[in-house]
Amino acid sequence: MAGSPRRTAGRRLQLPLLCLLLQGATAILFAVFVRYSHETDAALWHWRNHSNADNEFYFRYPSFQDVHTMIFVGFGFLMVFLQRYGFSSVGFTFLLAAFALQWSTLVQGFFHSFHGGHIHVGVESMINADFCAGAVLISFGAILGKTGPAQLLLMALLEVVLFGLNEFVLLSLLGVKDAGGSMTIHTFGAYFGLVLSRVLYRPQLEKSKHRQGSVYHSDLFAMIGTIFLWIFWPSFNSAPTTLGDGQHRTALNTYYSLTASTLSTFALSALVGRDGRLDMVHVQNAALAGGVVVGTSAEMMLTPFGALVAGFLAGTVSTLGYKFFTVQMPLGPWAEQGPILESKLKVQDTCGVHNLHGMPGVLGALLGVLVAGLATHEAYGDGLESVFPLLAKGQRSATSQAMHQLFGLFVTLIFASVGGSLGGLLLRLPFLDSPPDSQCYEDQIYWEVPGEHEDLAQGPLRAEEPETRA
Amino acid sequence: MAGSPRRTAGRRLQLPLLCLLLQGATAILFAVFVRYSHETDAALWHWRNHSNADNEFYFRYPSFQDVHTMIFVGFGFLMVFLQRYGFSSVGFTFLLAAFALQWSTLVQGFFHSFHGGHIHVGVESMINADFCAGAVLISFGAILGKTGPAQLLLMALLEVVLFGLNEFVLLSLLGVKDAGGSMTIHTFGAYFGLVLSRVLYRPQLEKSKHRQGSVYHSDLFAMIGTIFLWIFWPSFNSAPTTLGDGQHRTALNTYYSLTASTLSTFALSALVGRDGRLDMVHVQNAALAGGVVVGTSAEMMLTPFGALVAGFLAGTVSTLGYKFFTVQMPLGPWAEQGPILESKLKVQDTCGVHNLHGMPGVLGALLGVLVAGLATHEAYGDGLESVFPLLAKGQRSATSQAMHQLFGLFVTLIFASVGGSLGGLLLRLPFLDSPPDSQCYEDQIYWEVPGEHEDLAQGPLRAEEPETRA
Amino acid sequence: MAGSPRRTAGRRLQLPLLCLLLQGATAILFAVFVRYSHETDAALWHWRNHSNADNEFYFRYPSFQDVHTMIFVGFGFLMVFLQRYGFSSVGFTFLLAAFALQWSTLVQGFFHSFHGGHIHVGVESMINADFCAGAVLISFGAILGKTGPAQLLLMALLEVVLFGLNEFVLLSLLGVKDAGGSMTIHTFGAYFGLVLSRVLYRPQLEKSKHRQGSVYHSDLFAMIGTIFLWIFWPSFNSAPTTLGDGQHRTALNTYYSLTASTLSTFALSALVGRDGRLDMVHVQNAALAGGVVVGTSAEMMLTPFGALVAGFLAGTVSTLGYKFFTVQMPLGPWAEQGPILESKLKVQDTCGVHNLHGMPGVLGALLGVLVAGLATHEAYGDGLESVFPLLAKGQRSATSQAMHQLFGLFVTLIFASVGGSLGGLLLRLPFLDSPPDSQCYEDQIYWEVPGEHEDLAQGPLRAEEPETRA
Repeated sequence: MAGSPRRTAGRRLQLPLLCLLLQGATAILFAVFVRYSHETDAALWHWRNHSNADNEFYFRYPSFQDVHTMIFVGFGFLMVFLQRYGFSSVGFTFLLAAFALQWSTLVQGFFHSFHGGHIHVGVESMINADFCAGAVLISFGAILGKTGPAQLLLMALLEVVLFGLNEFVLLSLLGVKDAGGSMTIHTFGAYFGLVLSRVLYRPQLEKSKHRQGSVYHSDLFAMIGTIFLWIFWPSFNSAPTTLGDGQHRTALNTYYSLTASTLSTFALSALVGRDGRLDMVHVQNAALAGGVVVGTSAEMMLTPFGALVAGFLAGTVSTLGYKFFTVQMPLGPWAEQGPILESKLKVQDTCGVHNLHGMPGVLGALLGVLVAGLATHEAYGDGLESVFPLLAKGQRSATSQAMHQLFGLFVTLIFASVGGSLGGLLLRLPFLDSPPDSQCYEDQIYWEVPGEHEDLAQGPLRAEEPETRA
Repeated sequence: MAGSPRRTAGRRLQLPLLCLLLQGATAILFAVFVRYSHETDAALWHWRNHSNADNEFYFRYPSFQDVHTMIFVGFGFLMVFLQRYGFSSVGFTFLLAAFALQWSTLVQGFFHSFHGGHIHVGVESMINADFCAGAVLISFGAILGKTGPAQLLLMALLEVVLFGLNEFVLLSLLGVKDAGGSMTIHTFGAYFGLVLSRVLYRPQLEKSKHRQGSVYHSDLFAMIGTIFLWIFWPSFNSAPTTLGDGQHRTALNTYYSLTASTLSTFALSALVGRDGRLDMVHVQNAALAGGVVVGTSAEMMLTPFGALVAGFLAGTVSTLGYKFFTVQMPLGPWAEQGPILESKLKVQDTCGVHNLHGMPGVLGALLGVLVAGLATHEAYGDGLESVFPLLAKGQRSATSQAMHQLFGLFVTLIFASVGGSLGGLLLRLPFLDSPPDSQCYEDQIYWEVPGEHEDLAQGPLRAEEPETRA
Repeated sequence: MAGSPRRTAGRRLQLPLLCLLLQGATAILFAVFVRYSHETDAALWHWRNHSNADNEFYFRYPSFQDVHTMIFVGFGFLMVFLQRYGFSSVGFTFLLAAFALQWSTLVQGFFHSFHGGHIHVGVESMINADFCAGAVLISFGAILGKTGPAQLLLMALLEVVLFGLNEFVLLSLLGVKDAGGSMTIHTFGAYFGLVLSRVLYRPQLEKSKHRQGSVYHSDLFAMIGTIFLWIFWPSFNSAPTTLGDGQHRTALNTYYSLTASTLSTFALSALVGRDGRLDMVHVQNAALAGGVVVGTSAEMMLTPFGALVAGFLAGTVSTLGYKFFTVQMPLGPWAEQGPILESKLKVQDTCGVHNLHGMPGVLGALLGVLVAGLATHEAYGDGLESVFPLLAKGQRSATSQAMHQLFGLFVTLIFASVGGSLGGLLLRLPFLDSPPDSQCYEDQIYWEVPGEHEDLAQGPLRAEEPETRA
């Protein structure tokens, strides 16, 4: 169907027209609303007679660049593991994130920095926009290979709004702390994507099964993504925290947590592997769970020991999730019955975001509840003001803060589920271009692929090609 | 010819001898002229009793590292797209840039920081040298695959001098602003390379046509280059600006411009593609045009909206350029008549630098003319001093500054054209080793290539091998 | 043997159990000993009423991130050059380094920041732990492909302790300067690994010879490692120096040295290559020797000229070492007699760490002796205090400092040799899982490898597979 002449006649314009429409709309909104902040405006900055060394740029820009690397290199290449979907993985990541940066600058600006009728932008809005793009890419991971680029842009259009709303409710209304986004980014992005994938359930997806695995060099490309995510995660969690000890401590805790999730991932992967063999899927993904799990609590007084324990648990849970919930490759004794998540819940989770972002995100939120509940004036001293301002002012007890944190998780799950459902209905609009069941995980529908590709890949596609190209 | 025994006997020494000669010469010049600046010299720094936190290092080094990554990882891997030229692309980038860093430290030092008979070096000279290496690599892109490494080193020897001279005329004599180098780097590098490629025109180049495309994994390697260029371009444009709001604003504008060029690239690529398919060549290159086009104006009060519009236009122009001027691959209805740039103007532009650096560079220069012409005391406040010092001092009107900017573009085009012509004549010296028409875009002439390569690549080469190896 | 059913029954548990044991042990030690430093602890930082801008984080964290990138991306991908060992190279690097970061935080903490019964951690301990991980990965390079992951973890367990001890003797007891670790990291790591490889000598290793070379795309992956090491080496050497001019000068010297080692590597590689061809092994490795050779002296007043000369020599020595001591591939006239290091000394050095870290490390130590011996009050001014505090205080003459530096090299060689011997004996414990001679440099023993791999790789393995999988 998707390969019929009708597709090429009627649907080939969806992507370009949507790109142009969205870009036109954001440009107009930028013209009307977006202005330089007092740190980026020549007149405003010099009017206040600041020392240049005090510009926020010098405290946040190096962290921003690390985050930016994670979004585009990290997420982009992590998803290149599929054997015939490398162009789409890295290319659509590029497109989606570029759009999300513009759109979330507007949405988050309305919620967080709208003063005098204008949104004020600078390095903080850059970091926040990248964070929102991260959530969109997590959702993308759940539906990777099963949607067209126009569908993905529509998903981003909706998800960015709901992300901004959820974040506003948590951070501004509920006074919840979530610097590294265990809730706002990972839990939200994962369950938004999973529910959306559920709505888009494809019972005939096994027609594309032969393209769902990796090949040797695609696994190496994916490791580029993994390693860049791993090394820069300390910057991710610490990018938006308060300056000084807050940023320093957050980076340190995240660093320890990641080392522990790496060790537990290798241990568990070998333990559950056939003949004790390690699985690249686990190493590529579960080793990162240590970054997710301390997203809420890393800026708190988690202690280095606490960070190790959290990372260890996250790596364990994530690896077991990949093994028993969403087996990716046709290997192992569980291969015949298929992934539990798919067979029982009809959720097809291409990248296993439930294991890397979903469960560790929820764990991270609960860890935040625990560590917030244990906060004392003694442990934080005068630093309590910057980590838990409401506690420092006496407006809230530690237990109350913990309850607010827990409620924040609940709100996030609601927003993600409702949003994912809406997103799924939106993406099921019948006129939207979507790959047929037999052409999922396949670059050739959306990309000019150099001829040599065919030699490297499996045979079945070639028979279907004439149809697609008709 | 190049494969005959005479080559191996007489020409194999060209590269090593030239490397040794150039290294010897720069080392002697370093011994005579180069000294630590007051920020890097132990005695000078401590004599002035500075606070260590004030050292320029902390304000510029993170940006320098991003620029350094762009030069070596970005440019290096971007050019790996060719199926059998990956070793040369990344290897010769490495060699050329390493030499250019030394040589431009000397040349730029003579023009910009020559005091008391000595050149003083520190993080600013490091950034400037990397910028010059960038221009050399842009020119390399135009002739990629058609020249030997000794020829390339001679090109760099000449180009670095002309780059330094052009930059001196623009920045120091004409008082032109060009922080991110739309003129000094992109326009200069592109037209230097294109004119040089014209002089080296090879009418029989279709003998190597079968090696001029990409393969699946070489396109993925090239995306590593693209993405690292894209994410760090805000640091590139902002690395040499004034501290404080200037650096902050430049990064922000570049970030917005790049998101817009990415959206327009995807839109246009799908619009002009066969059956609405996207083309990797466009995504790898045109999406970056947003960084080029704000190279001059990003430090000015361009406004976020202005940055979006500029990026959008640059991505559009660049994508259309790739489609209609320099089609790379034997695909599409225009394939038969060949690239217009080649068939009409006899310019063989391997990487399409005309589309990524040439046209967007000129557009960027013109945008600089416009934005400089609109500068007012009201918009810049006391910040006018740091962006347009001559305007702030009343020595020049905004219109006059705009005219100087325009004249700077004209000067750059002259320097680039004359320089490229001289470079072409230099590289055509008959005793210089150059690949024959049938061996262009081929690693095996200059590199030991592991045997497995032959299995992955196309057949024709094997027949010619014995000749080359004789 | 290793492929027999007994292996899979008895030895598959070694890796997971060891991971869990080591993680449990370090976690307990963290709980007892590790505490936030006054820069990372909320109460301590705010108690002293610091300005947040003074937090060490802002001076060291960008450098830390560059070092972190080198350890995980640089070392990891540099070793991916082997055709069938990419998963292991990047995966075991990941595992080993993650463990080394935890363990060396403890070991170095006991030696360097143990106050009041506690180890205090922050960005400096993060940098130091990454440095120690670097030494472990250098040793890993010598034995790459010939050991199992459990063996490697045991090696790290021992090596981290000896690294910490050696570093303590040099830096704290002998007052030796070695910011970038020419001695403590490179010389120590290389000779520890080489001696260990000698103890593990495998006379029948030619059974795996066909897997010891690279393939085209594995060489490109390795260049990712090379380039990231090269660009960030200035940050590596400067990360732990004194702030201000010290950090600035160290980065600058390293930058120059690396450009020179790149030029000499290309010159020498072409000079000694067949028909003047360049060798990827040289470019991937020897071009980096300029970073190693100034590890001790880059923070001193080496002068830019001195940095060029040092880098040039290091690139030359390293390239010649690869050519004549440890030929990697079955090419060239020396191929028949095999690598001298192996045939004469029975040292099988997979990555040629003797050439990249061993000889340049020793050269770097000797250069440090020379430059320290030339130190004068005139050259360093009041900066002498921060580079050579004992000279500034008059407790030592420059000659005496030079002698201490030389003695430090001697001590390092002793520690490395004794440690490597002990390590070899430890790894030869008969119950430890180790790949058989015919299965070295092969991912499939330790990893689930996607089926397509077989198509890309050489034939012989398939025959042995059933045995391994039995």
